[in-house]
Amino acid sequence: MKKREDSIVGFIGLGLMGGALAMGLRKQGPREIWAYDLNPSVIKKALDQGVIDQGVWDSAGLQKMLPQCDLVFICLTPMDTLAFLALYMEDFKPGAIVTDIIGVKEVVFKNLGNLLRKDIDYIPGHPMAGSEKEGFGGADDRVFKNRNYILTPLPTNQPENIALIRDIVTELGFNHIVETTTEIHDQKIAFTSQLCHVIAAALVDCEDDLSITDFEGGSFGDLTRIAMINAPMWTELFMCNRKNLLDQIEKFESSLAAMKDMIRLDEKEELIDRLQSVREKRIAMGEIRAAKSLKNL
Amino acid sequence: MKKREDSIVGFIGLGLMGGALAMGLRKQGPREIWAYDLNPSVIKKALDQGVIDQGVWDSAGLQKMLPQCDLVFICLTPMDTLAFLALYMEDFKPGAIVTDIIGVKEVVFKNLGNLLRKDIDYIPGHPMAGSEKEGFGGADDRVFKNRNYILTPLPTNQPENIALIRDIVTELGFNHIVETTTEIHDQKIAFTSQLCHVIAAALVDCEDDLSITDFEGGSFGDLTRIAMINAPMWTELFMCNRKNLLDQIEKFESSLAAMKDMIRLDEKEELIDRLQSVREKRIAMGEIRAAKSLKNL
Repeated sequence: MKKREDSIVGFIGLGLMGGALAMGLRKQGPREIWAYDLNPSVIKKALDQGVIDQGVWDSAGLQKMLPQCDLVFICLTPMDTLAFLALYMEDFKPGAIVTDIIGVKEVVFKNLGNLLRKDIDYIPGHPMAGSEKEGFGGADDRVFKNRNYILTPLPTNQPENIALIRDIVTELGFNHIVETTTEIHDQKIAFTSQLCHVIAAALVDCEDDLSITDFEGGSFGDLTRIAMINAPMWTELFMCNRKNLLDQIEKFESSLAAMKDMIRLDEKEELIDRLQSVREKRIAMGEIRAAKSLKNL
Repeated sequence: MKKREDSIVGFIGLGLMGGALAMGLRKQGPREIWAYDLNPSVIKKALDQGVIDQGVWDSAGLQKMLPQCDLVFICLTPMDTLAFLALYMEDFKPGAIVTDIIGVKEVVFKNLGNLLRKDIDYIPGHPMAGSEKEGFGGADDRVFKNRNYILTPLPTNQPENIALIRDIVTELGFNHIVETTTEIHDQKIAFTSQLCHVIAAALVDCEDDLSITDFEGGSFGDLTRIAMINAPMWTELFMCNRKNLLDQIEKFESSLAAMKDMIRLDEKEELIDRLQSVREKRIAMGEIRAAKSLKNL
């Protein structure tokens, strides 16, 4: 493993997340940052802003760039990540560390089969951060501050390479790094991320009055900010994690139906008890996470 | 109507909202601020902090205070507001302007009947602001900044008194004042406020893993902050607006079920279209509200 200051870091895709990660990596002083994006104007913008040192936007350029990169961040959607790996596996530099940012893990790694070369170290990752903006123009590495970063290491990963990724993301601002399996990742993410996006979308979907915000006190805004959704990307994430997401939606529907019944049947004491236990549970969830924050941030 | 600097302003209840309103009013320089709260330690704290000039915590004190107050903010729950009005109607100063902050309007004004004295001007209000904190210790008038204030005036209200309330709440930081009927208020609030709280509570309720926040990227936190709920108060609000709230829950359930079906049936194009229209609708809702903000803030 090379030192970071001697490494060339490559980004595949300079969207909201790829752009933000590149901006953050810039501050860590690697030898160079290179990027591939289908959109030449994004590459131009990233060069102009000094976020990257070199950029390419076609297959020929990519095949020149990839063999140079010591560390590669693939910042594409799940299906595009899979397609990228299938198409360009032979172009990675021997010994390269490769990571991704995709929000569903099982579907990719089940389909990857024996495609992964043994002389590269592929460490799947998932930065739990984002915003309602889209593309490189919305990219901002401040979104990483105090967030979770999930790694779902493969049995073949080198401990020193995992340690490097942990160091990098800690410096990016993430203050809690979780290592787990792809299976657990997908179950948990179906709840914390995908279910939340479905709820936010359904809440906006069911209201026809565009002036409803006259009656808004913060709650509706907080619950629906993530409804300003990248529709194709989230559709892909939902579909790629269908079974887990459907389970989580049904779990939520049951809780909602139980509360609805308490309201309908005027069961005041039961509802107060339930809401009190919800309050305590939510406070505990926050405290448990806060206690895990890396002390140096 | 007296000038504000000559007026004694009375607060009934110095909780999260009463406390914050009193803190904000303090900056507007009324002659004096008096308060009634059942908890003597809250009164003492408010006196110590200079938020109020005089305070009482029993019925005898209240009956001395109320006849002095030119403007009264009743900052109690709906049922307590109703009980307060029934018990102390005779004690208001003739000509007093009286307002409230309760989050459901119909149930109170239907039950008030002919109780309201003709020589006081009762102007129902609803500051659309709050926080997950509780009580005077959590009170902070910064929560009012750029929020909505709803008034549901009665036909008998004096225009100059409504104008006074509008001026006061504008100075408190609210940047959009909506005047509507109690009926419309309760329908809209069932969606923007009560439904959002039920959803947040159900989302926490359905998850048993207290370490789920390991997998959190902001969405779950944003959707469930309001699940740290004042259980008895929100139960009362839900029950007092039962019919509207049940309608809104069912409307939301239908949208959620429709999205679930699209996911289950792998209807990608339909889901992308739906999420795209949700995104556009939510952006429009935000823009429409922003355009209404008072220009001087």
